[in-house]
Amino acid sequence: MKAQRVDMFVCPSATPSDVSGLQKLADEGKIKPETLVALVGKTEGTGAHDDWGRIWADAALREWTARFLGVPKDEVAKHVIFVLSGGCPGVITPHIAAVTREFVDVPDGGDREKRLVVGRAGSEAIGPEEVGRMGMIRKVAAATHEAMKDAGLTDPKDVHLVMVKVPGLTVASIRDAESRGETVVSHDLTFGPEGAGVYANDAAALGVAMALGEVPESKLSDDVVRRDWDLFSEVAMTSSGGEKRHGEVVVFGNSTASASALRIGHSVTHDFIDAEGVRAALRSAGLQFDGDGLPDQDDLRRLVHVFAKSVIPGNDHVRGNRITLLDDVHAYEIGKALGGMLVASVTGRTTNYVSGGERNSHQGPPDGNIVAAVVRAD
Amino acid sequence: MKAQRVDMFVCPSATPSDVSGLQKLADEGKIKPETLVALVGKTEGTGAHDDWGRIWADAALREWTARFLGVPKDEVAKHVIFVLSGGCPGVITPHIAAVTREFVDVPDGGDREKRLVVGRAGSEAIGPEEVGRMGMIRKVAAATHEAMKDAGLTDPKDVHLVMVKVPGLTVASIRDAESRGETVVSHDLTFGPEGAGVYANDAAALGVAMALGEVPESKLSDDVVRRDWDLFSEVAMTSSGGEKRHGEVVVFGNSTASASALRIGHSVTHDFIDAEGVRAALRSAGLQFDGDGLPDQDDLRRLVHVFAKSVIPGNDHVRGNRITLLDDVHAYEIGKALGGMLVASVTGRTTNYVSGGERNSHQGPPDGNIVAAVVRAD
Amino acid sequence: MKAQRVDMFVCPSATPSDVSGLQKLADEGKIKPETLVALVGKTEGTGAHDDWGRIWADAALREWTARFLGVPKDEVAKHVIFVLSGGCPGVITPHIAAVTREFVDVPDGGDREKRLVVGRAGSEAIGPEEVGRMGMIRKVAAATHEAMKDAGLTDPKDVHLVMVKVPGLTVASIRDAESRGETVVSHDLTFGPEGAGVYANDAAALGVAMALGEVPESKLSDDVVRRDWDLFSEVAMTSSGGEKRHGEVVVFGNSTASASALRIGHSVTHDFIDAEGVRAALRSAGLQFDGDGLPDQDDLRRLVHVFAKSVIPGNDHVRGNRITLLDDVHAYEIGKALGGMLVASVTGRTTNYVSGGERNSHQGPPDGNIVAAVVRAD
Amino acid sequence: MKAQRVDMFVCPSATPSDVSGLQKLADEGKIKPETLVALVGKTEGTGAHDDWGRIWADAALREWTARFLGVPKDEVAKHVIFVLSGGCPGVITPHIAAVTREFVDVPDGGDREKRLVVGRAGSEAIGPEEVGRMGMIRKVAAATHEAMKDAGLTDPKDVHLVMVKVPGLTVASIRDAESRGETVVSHDLTFGPEGAGVYANDAAALGVAMALGEVPESKLSDDVVRRDWDLFSEVAMTSSGGEKRHGEVVVFGNSTASASALRIGHSVTHDFIDAEGVRAALRSAGLQFDGDGLPDQDDLRRLVHVFAKSVIPGNDHVRGNRITLLDDVHAYEIGKALGGMLVASVTGRTTNYVSGGERNSHQGPPDGNIVAAVVRAD
Repeated sequence: MKAQRVDMFVCPSATPSDVSGLQKLADEGKIKPETLVALVGKTEGTGAHDDWGRIWADAALREWTARFLGVPKDEVAKHVIFVLSGGCPGVITPHIAAVTREFVDVPDGGDREKRLVVGRAGSEAIGPEEVGRMGMIRKVAAATHEAMKDAGLTDPKDVHLVMVKVPGLTVASIRDAESRGETVVSHDLTFGPEGAGVYANDAAALGVAMALGEVPESKLSDDVVRRDWDLFSEVAMTSSGGEKRHGEVVVFGNSTASASALRIGHSVTHDFIDAEGVRAALRSAGLQFDGDGLPDQDDLRRLVHVFAKSVIPGNDHVRGNRITLLDDVHAYEIGKALGGMLVASVTGRTTNYVSGGERNSHQGPPDGNIVAAVVRAD
Repeated sequence: MKAQRVDMFVCPSATPSDVSGLQKLADEGKIKPETLVALVGKTEGTGAHDDWGRIWADAALREWTARFLGVPKDEVAKHVIFVLSGGCPGVITPHIAAVTREFVDVPDGGDREKRLVVGRAGSEAIGPEEVGRMGMIRKVAAATHEAMKDAGLTDPKDVHLVMVKVPGLTVASIRDAESRGETVVSHDLTFGPEGAGVYANDAAALGVAMALGEVPESKLSDDVVRRDWDLFSEVAMTSSGGEKRHGEVVVFGNSTASASALRIGHSVTHDFIDAEGVRAALRSAGLQFDGDGLPDQDDLRRLVHVFAKSVIPGNDHVRGNRITLLDDVHAYEIGKALGGMLVASVTGRTTNYVSGGERNSHQGPPDGNIVAAVVRAD
Repeated sequence: MKAQRVDMFVCPSATPSDVSGLQKLADEGKIKPETLVALVGKTEGTGAHDDWGRIWADAALREWTARFLGVPKDEVAKHVIFVLSGGCPGVITPHIAAVTREFVDVPDGGDREKRLVVGRAGSEAIGPEEVGRMGMIRKVAAATHEAMKDAGLTDPKDVHLVMVKVPGLTVASIRDAESRGETVVSHDLTFGPEGAGVYANDAAALGVAMALGEVPESKLSDDVVRRDWDLFSEVAMTSSGGEKRHGEVVVFGNSTASASALRIGHSVTHDFIDAEGVRAALRSAGLQFDGDGLPDQDDLRRLVHVFAKSVIPGNDHVRGNRITLLDDVHAYEIGKALGGMLVASVTGRTTNYVSGGERNSHQGPPDGNIVAAVVRAD
Repeated sequence: MKAQRVDMFVCPSATPSDVSGLQKLADEGKIKPETLVALVGKTEGTGAHDDWGRIWADAALREWTARFLGVPKDEVAKHVIFVLSGGCPGVITPHIAAVTREFVDVPDGGDREKRLVVGRAGSEAIGPEEVGRMGMIRKVAAATHEAMKDAGLTDPKDVHLVMVKVPGLTVASIRDAESRGETVVSHDLTFGPEGAGVYANDAAALGVAMALGEVPESKLSDDVVRRDWDLFSEVAMTSSGGEKRHGEVVVFGNSTASASALRIGHSVTHDFIDAEGVRAALRSAGLQFDGDGLPDQDDLRRLVHVFAKSVIPGNDHVRGNRITLLDDVHAYEIGKALGGMLVASVTGRTTNYVSGGERNSHQGPPDGNIVAAVVRAD
């Protein structure tokens, strides 16, 4: 039978336009034009609107990938999904993780361990009037199902990470919607608490939650988005932006139809200082350290990568004591940095994918955050 | 024989001028005019030069203490030492720790466990030409010896935390020095890497190191301050500023001549993500959790307080990977926030005293930081 | 007949709690308990949520005023209106302007020049469901009419500055409204573009515009607030906040029933770099410099004070060229600083009252801002 | 006889990598490979160390220029001087000014008006031990003389703008110097008040001042750099950085041996709010508006470009009143933004070259700044 063999390579970046790590992987034959399916990374810079580091990185990576694949630059997106998250405050090392997938023959039957698989899908076009609302939720849910199918996954319990990119709103798309007599979820184009960007991110997260049965469709409506925080996904990491018209979904999970050396797992933190939640993600991926204990250096050598969110809690108390983060003008940057520290203090390394900084989300439980880990099984 | 009984009470602050926690302690008889020896706290705000939170807190606390002691406001400093560190970014709860000391009779001899003692001393006047140089180092060393004596400590190994405040430079004091034909260590009045403030802090730290034998006097000279980072103290937390002319030293240690219920210990982190260094400090203070393991909730209930520095490392690599913190315009605030997270992720609480944000220091080893912990022994 | 005699004294502040300038005015008899009607000032600090400078200033000024008036602190607000605007970035000197009013006998009739008068009024209680909506607009309009009456003004053309403070929304007041089945204008408690604070400020501005006939009531509805920027006041400077339940309105204008030595005028800038708009305000107040020219030092000596807004334009072009301010994470602080520079470059001094930094407003025309000036007539 | 014909074209940039304006100039034949001598611009971004906008702009412009000239990328610097200043806070439009020069035949003799000329020169290699000291001062002075010669200028009074780029210090170059037993001016690699970068900038400015006779060589020594602020140039705009080993100098002035349609002039502001200083620069370049008056739209149409510094004053008073800029953590960005506003409020446009933000400089008088203007004469 055919099985996926998925691999993941983490390359630190010396500058936003540094493609030397990818080139080395290509030179060594570790990534090939036909196997490269995704580039997921953190780019250096402030992570703010005027952070050109991310945009430069995107341009440079897209140019390199076009050359590598032998396709025009504007066709790269058809072959390789880019998830670049800007801002590396604190102890987050700028890096790119290359994800490869190939299909190999494996003997039928037997008692195969579940291993890493990956699947991708695009959604139907999402109109501006659907952004942050049920329209987006349903289309992301449908695309999540398709991406699961592409990954060969049927049981939602086997899904450990769903990365989603969806369209946000722009001045132009709002004008378009309103000229057709439609309304939009927000006129606020910032990532503030009522901003269109966070509505889009959160509808996308609820779409994943619906697809995976984490939230029953009956509980979902336009009104719950960014209102009912008890509805959330434990595996959705979402972003929105630009002039995109379609959503893109990448699903990571474990399957017996996999010949990968890697395994993925996930957990959540229950509040902003919950290092145990990070350790639980590592254990979920199969790092075998004692239940109450700590991973040792040998364990951590098997850890390939961690993906974590660092959404700022919506309330200003942590375990009963007040913090001042919500009033901090630099909360966005500091919130992200804190997540980076929480993860790094457990993994013993700084090349972790940590995105976030926004306030409140349906990505992960109230006050907590999602952590997924990929581990070398063998 | 007479023994010290030292206690420590941590009061979260609702605003910079909140004295209700102290008032409650006073009402309950836990702190008395004759027992209060120090107020050590974190005040909310940016921690930057234009952070009025710390200055308002100082004014409000000084006013309250004057009333409490029944002395004029400008005499408060003779009775109670104030150490207020501005800036609570991230997961640092604004709080004030009140330290009390009284002398009680205990039976002579016997095999008493070492317990918490505290001692204080002022230094000789420190001239502007001595700031950041051997003059300051020697005077702080002398004052440290006196404070040890006041604490009843003779063995430097029993000293676990030395908080020092020294004069910095000002436009006026530089003019004074230069009018007398003297030079000063820096004309930079910022806390930048060549700023007078960090020179003062670091000379004070080396003074403690000299007093405790951590650095032999023979290795010390004007030229090593902020140059030879291999010289450092593991227990000195220092600050400088304003128009002070004398240094102030508070020593915390353990002694058999103590009837305290508390014990202090310390350790250092070896780099910016070293949670194990924080755990080592807790163990040093007597929290008994398994060598490789984690403190459980019962253990942590015995933890009274943690004092930690979060100095930014001088190089831009952590365990072999590059971080971008040194180029971050908000490095000062983020660096402090990261230390707060590192400590809180271990202690499971946010009311930790964490100061820092400056780059490089003789407070703690290169790339690492000092952590001291106070634990209820009984 | 009775006429108002209004005076205005600008005191630079050395620190947020500095009341020495006011004390000196009191000692010299320039302000008296029975004549002091308002304290309007800029307080130093970041102007952000965690700026304790403004809060400390408010506490210190309220304490001083209570002593000065001989009333309890919580009754100060009945006698003296406080308008403290936080944040003095760039070339804005922290200062307090004391406004006094007394009634004096003047000969009836004659051909009196119009001179400065001031009037105050409180609004009816404004419920949380009214914030940012027609309820608030109507109540502020009514209070503006009352304040005009208190000032002895009947013709809206004689009104040159209306300072308004209104309730904003809080977590508690939103809960209150929703528990009664009402909705609120926004759940965003920030000052972002869809924040409750800016909705409150802007409804208050439209209330003034309605009272003065700048906008006909027929054009006003809930839907135009922060949507139809062609509706605006040229004289309203508004703020919102805290747990207030009533609006407060202070009207400044010129009247023949005035024995003041001062006169007020106003104008607007047409874009962010329009120094001519500032000069027009000075001319409006009666500074006589040549139509196309510049005020000279003698002219400027007669200038008592300038009040200006510095709202950030909603579009990213100034006279055809793109600026990047809207994407700047420090836009709030920089926007305010730029207004301070524009005014100071014309007035030749830095003690100008300049508030703003928020994006878009019904205070002043699209892309432009309000400037009012008070000039010594004699 | 041969005369220079110099032209200058200002292209707003839509993004850091936008070269469309230059391409259009090339397509129209306004710039040619053999006439392009300098690209001087402002790039969008924070202007801070982690601002990738400037670096991306440099990469994109260098790539375009290499293609345009038909030379390898690393030879571009031999043909075209790049002066890119990062950070466009407030009302500074990101833009690139292209400077062209060609030599044309003009009739000998006659009474030619002085018009714009430009000259360039590289300095001798400047060692790290010379940075910020007399070695650098002398080498920049020599290169300034050479650049004047290249421009055909002999009288310093005809020089109105000297742009200089010099080597700064790096970790590597400091190590190099110290390994040879030499000392360096500072170990502080920031742009703080004792930073190597500002020492380099200021020595370069004094080098220009020495070459032009603004400061006699007898007054210059290592000790006056960043100490004696009474020594300064009124025309030097300098920057430093990277791994450069040589200085680069571009001189702009007016000469009768010029067939240019443009003329340059300069002046200085006397403090941070001195709009009159900006107007004086415009008049110096030949914009004819009334001595006390304002340029009108027709005048301003003849204005081609303004180059201005916005160095933050070293003292915290402006015309007798305190400002808080020096304590502002965002002083660098705000200081630059304020200069942008001061210039734009006079020129009525936002495409001005304004660099600065650092504190104190030998570029311009104490508290004031340099402003140069280029005007179309015909």
